[in-house]
Amino acid sequence: MASILLKHFLCLLLAAFAASWMVQARMRGVFNAPTPPNLTVTKASMAEFLALNGQSVSLAVLQYAAGGVNPPHTHPRAAELLFVVEGSLEVGFVDTTNKLFTQTLQLGDMFVFPKGLVHYQYNADAKNPATAISAFGSANAGTASIPTTLFATGIDDNILAKAFKTDVATIQKIKAGLAAKA
Amino acid sequence: MASILLKHFLCLLLAAFAASWMVQARMRGVFNAPTPPNLTVTKASMAEFLALNGQSVSLAVLQYAAGGVNPPHTHPRAAELLFVVEGSLEVGFVDTTNKLFTQTLQLGDMFVFPKGLVHYQYNADAKNPATAISAFGSANAGTASIPTTLFATGIDDNILAKAFKTDVATIQKIKAGLAAKA
Amino acid sequence: MASILLKHFLCLLLAAFAASWMVQARMRGVFNAPTPPNLTVTKASMAEFLALNGQSVSLAVLQYAAGGVNPPHTHPRAAELLFVVEGSLEVGFVDTTNKLFTQTLQLGDMFVFPKGLVHYQYNADAKNPATAISAFGSANAGTASIPTTLFATGIDDNILAKAFKTDVATIQKIKAGLAAKA
Amino acid sequence: MASILLKHFLCLLLAAFAASWMVQARMRGVFNAPTPPNLTVTKASMAEFLALNGQSVSLAVLQYAAGGVNPPHTHPRAAELLFVVEGSLEVGFVDTTNKLFTQTLQLGDMFVFPKGLVHYQYNADAKNPATAISAFGSANAGTASIPTTLFATGIDDNILAKAFKTDVATIQKIKAGLAAKA
Amino acid sequence: MASILLKHFLCLLLAAFAASWMVQARMRGVFNAPTPPNLTVTKASMAEFLALNGQSVSLAVLQYAAGGVNPPHTHPRAAELLFVVEGSLEVGFVDTTNKLFTQTLQLGDMFVFPKGLVHYQYNADAKNPATAISAFGSANAGTASIPTTLFATGIDDNILAKAFKTDVATIQKIKAGLAAKA
Amino acid sequence: MASILLKHFLCLLLAAFAASWMVQARMRGVFNAPTPPNLTVTKASMAEFLALNGQSVSLAVLQYAAGGVNPPHTHPRAAELLFVVEGSLEVGFVDTTNKLFTQTLQLGDMFVFPKGLVHYQYNADAKNPATAISAFGSANAGTASIPTTLFATGIDDNILAKAFKTDVATIQKIKAGLAAKA
Repeated sequence: MASILLKHFLCLLLAAFAASWMVQARMRGVFNAPTPPNLTVTKASMAEFLALNGQSVSLAVLQYAAGGVNPPHTHPRAAELLFVVEGSLEVGFVDTTNKLFTQTLQLGDMFVFPKGLVHYQYNADAKNPATAISAFGSANAGTASIPTTLFATGIDDNILAKAFKTDVATIQKIKAGLAAKA
Repeated sequence: MASILLKHFLCLLLAAFAASWMVQARMRGVFNAPTPPNLTVTKASMAEFLALNGQSVSLAVLQYAAGGVNPPHTHPRAAELLFVVEGSLEVGFVDTTNKLFTQTLQLGDMFVFPKGLVHYQYNADAKNPATAISAFGSANAGTASIPTTLFATGIDDNILAKAFKTDVATIQKIKAGLAAKA
Repeated sequence: MASILLKHFLCLLLAAFAASWMVQARMRGVFNAPTPPNLTVTKASMAEFLALNGQSVSLAVLQYAAGGVNPPHTHPRAAELLFVVEGSLEVGFVDTTNKLFTQTLQLGDMFVFPKGLVHYQYNADAKNPATAISAFGSANAGTASIPTTLFATGIDDNILAKAFKTDVATIQKIKAGLAAKA
Repeated sequence: MASILLKHFLCLLLAAFAASWMVQARMRGVFNAPTPPNLTVTKASMAEFLALNGQSVSLAVLQYAAGGVNPPHTHPRAAELLFVVEGSLEVGFVDTTNKLFTQTLQLGDMFVFPKGLVHYQYNADAKNPATAISAFGSANAGTASIPTTLFATGIDDNILAKAFKTDVATIQKIKAGLAAKA
Repeated sequence: MASILLKHFLCLLLAAFAASWMVQARMRGVFNAPTPPNLTVTKASMAEFLALNGQSVSLAVLQYAAGGVNPPHTHPRAAELLFVVEGSLEVGFVDTTNKLFTQTLQLGDMFVFPKGLVHYQYNADAKNPATAISAFGSANAGTASIPTTLFATGIDDNILAKAFKTDVATIQKIKAGLAAKA
Repeated sequence: MASILLKHFLCLLLAAFAASWMVQARMRGVFNAPTPPNLTVTKASMAEFLALNGQSVSLAVLQYAAGGVNPPHTHPRAAELLFVVEGSLEVGFVDTTNKLFTQTLQLGDMFVFPKGLVHYQYNADAKNPATAISAFGSANAGTASIPTTLFATGIDDNILAKAFKTDVATIQKIKAGLAAKA
């Protein structure tokens, strides 16, 4: 019944620390960074910017090298609204009826990835980089990269082989590839 | 400003149809079904049981054959609380820091899979089936099976090869395996 | 403005304690318990299973003796989805227009009790026990038993007599009965 | 995924009807009503005042005769904040640990009844009326009167007798009393 | 993942302090206060009445002198439902399409100001006071008075002159007037 | 009880129309627009991009001329996270205790304006434009411009003069200035 009593008392003590509504160091870097090898993601979520706590919003800057890919992943706690500000991107997501939605985005295009669904982006241009700015409707959207989640966290080879209806050797090959180039 | 006005008028018309708070046909079947080949999931969510609309809860019965696996998947809109009512299960999930949590559950054990995170269950017993009842904190939790999402919805082979840091042949081998045994 | 600041700091300290996503001791007992005298309720909510915190879901196992009754009660913070896994049950709830909904549930039937409404279950079978598993869309649904709330917490006899349009002697008789057999 | 699409289209059509942000007829009456026999409740919730839809707030005026009682009841969808504007009131509620909280309120006092919990008010003054204004944190709080819910909706006598650990005759006596004076 | 863990532990310690569900001192005063010079607002929100924490409701009593005005203001976290209990009031609000809604309220009338929108009340009667009781769907609705926010918090004169398309002298005149009579 | 039943039926009909997850025409324009006279705001919210419905996120691009100002305004339904991608900006907001927070933002800086609070931005550079991209934690944040709301919607001159503690002539001067240059 008194389940949020605590916040009232202690947050008053902490409020002074929250008076910095600006974040700069990490984000300024995105404007003079060298070309990344594949993909660089710079986040402004609650972990980097405490004033976002309770505000239900965050941002990320995504910088793709020519041919760079953002592997299939999910954000467990928010939808993502992606805005292309340089170059072009192939994007896609799969809904809970296993339908794939894909699109080619040009400079100035936007695309929404619904909450919790697997999605990816790919810069198909072999010569030019691409950049996107993404907004999230949570201060702590979270990211689960599917290749890492499946093949680089220690899930048992036999379970994965059964799940993907393949053999253990194939699972081990993928695990080795991800480990080598991580 | 008037954003939920509509529901008030029209729901009165529909209320008569919602007077059936019981669902039975699908669920009675779980008590006399033959052993499934791998896994049978029987759901009671909003799609099957309209009275759940607006109630933020649903259930599923999961019946595993000996050696059966529920491949890695996510529920985009709810956490899952799984309760083992027959046999035993190996279970696991991966959080957004890429940490794997695993456990062996016996008859009577429970385990919670947080909202939106990738998780799986495996009946490691080679001879005996297992059964679990899962509760979800949404009437429409949704399920995205990762093998199907990635390899059976038409995502481009090159994007997948790049994402998994492997070659196109390996991707195609996995796709073929899933297609053959689906 | 800084109203949920506190959780961010202190929850990091507590996160290590929350790493146990499994609950077992209490729940295993439901599979080898002797027949209860009237009703045994075994809960897996936030109080028993801390990992449920923030997950908006919980479960309970309800074991009814032959003729056992779960008296009228409410769950102030969640709807309940009840699933009959042994025997049969008479169930009912009353909505806020004073309409009673009743149903006889057989093995494999489900029924939903909407949030906050008064409801009950009764095992009308004179010889056989019954068992149900209930899911709740809150980690802390709470239960208020109406007989206990009204007649065993010290509410003034005169107020109750007026409220039920009866005499004080009848109120005292009910109070004595509940106290004797509690 | 498109689960709230509908409201956007149709609510535009309905918005014109919602342009009356004022409600008057019912509420003006509370200022010149004759003394009620026991209790008169005048509500301004979504059912009476459509503009409250989506605003998460409602009000009620409660007018108690000398000795009047508002029987134990719950509001399934909101807490209630009661403000005494005439006379005095005995009030109480019972939490989910079966603890009773009571208080005598004088003119100008306020009291909060938490969401979903059973509560009552009683004007103990034998000569003078009392009036309260209550605010609710929902446009559709709902009310379930416990005496009516239990004893005037048709719940089976045997189930009630078992639940209250009394005999069927006592249940029937209470039912008859409520029916006679309703 | 463990984001609300903390509340569970510490709130138990604090629960004893929350056992006072009644607030009186401030509110009793509204019944014998002398006529205020312009407007007196007496609030019962979380800041004055800790038991409201988590209950999503609060109240305020507004007492207007003859000719008194409640200047344009917003409540950032709740809609307001205003109930006239003495005299009459001119009220208005402006929605996000810049449409003004106005109304003259008499004794017993109610009006709803939607969440976050600018609104005001004015007692146009030159001789008689007015009183209203307002309910809010939040325990911490907050108030931002527009004249104070704009002209008494130190916003730069040049920015204000540009924003209001006027000259700095006019801005300084308004600032001086507000400062003199505050 | 059945309050969101309607959506389930009708949204299925509408889902086909929602299959366009991309928005482009309006947003592409921001990359080749001529310098705006003061400020150009290009929004991607639910009104422009229907697929955002239910996703709790939106974006806007803000392009400021040299010396351009975004007058004090509120977003009633969301916090705003502003990211400077060209030039620099003076920004500020006022909280519900009447405290002003200001900051000078450079290229790459971010600032958060909490939900419902009055805030502004100003490009103090006399020669160079500035550009920001803002994220909102709602698909329908809404905007209420304070100068327009107060002085261009028809609020009575006398009420405004009283509210701002100034004379009617000053109110009329500001109204005329806003009308002339709108």
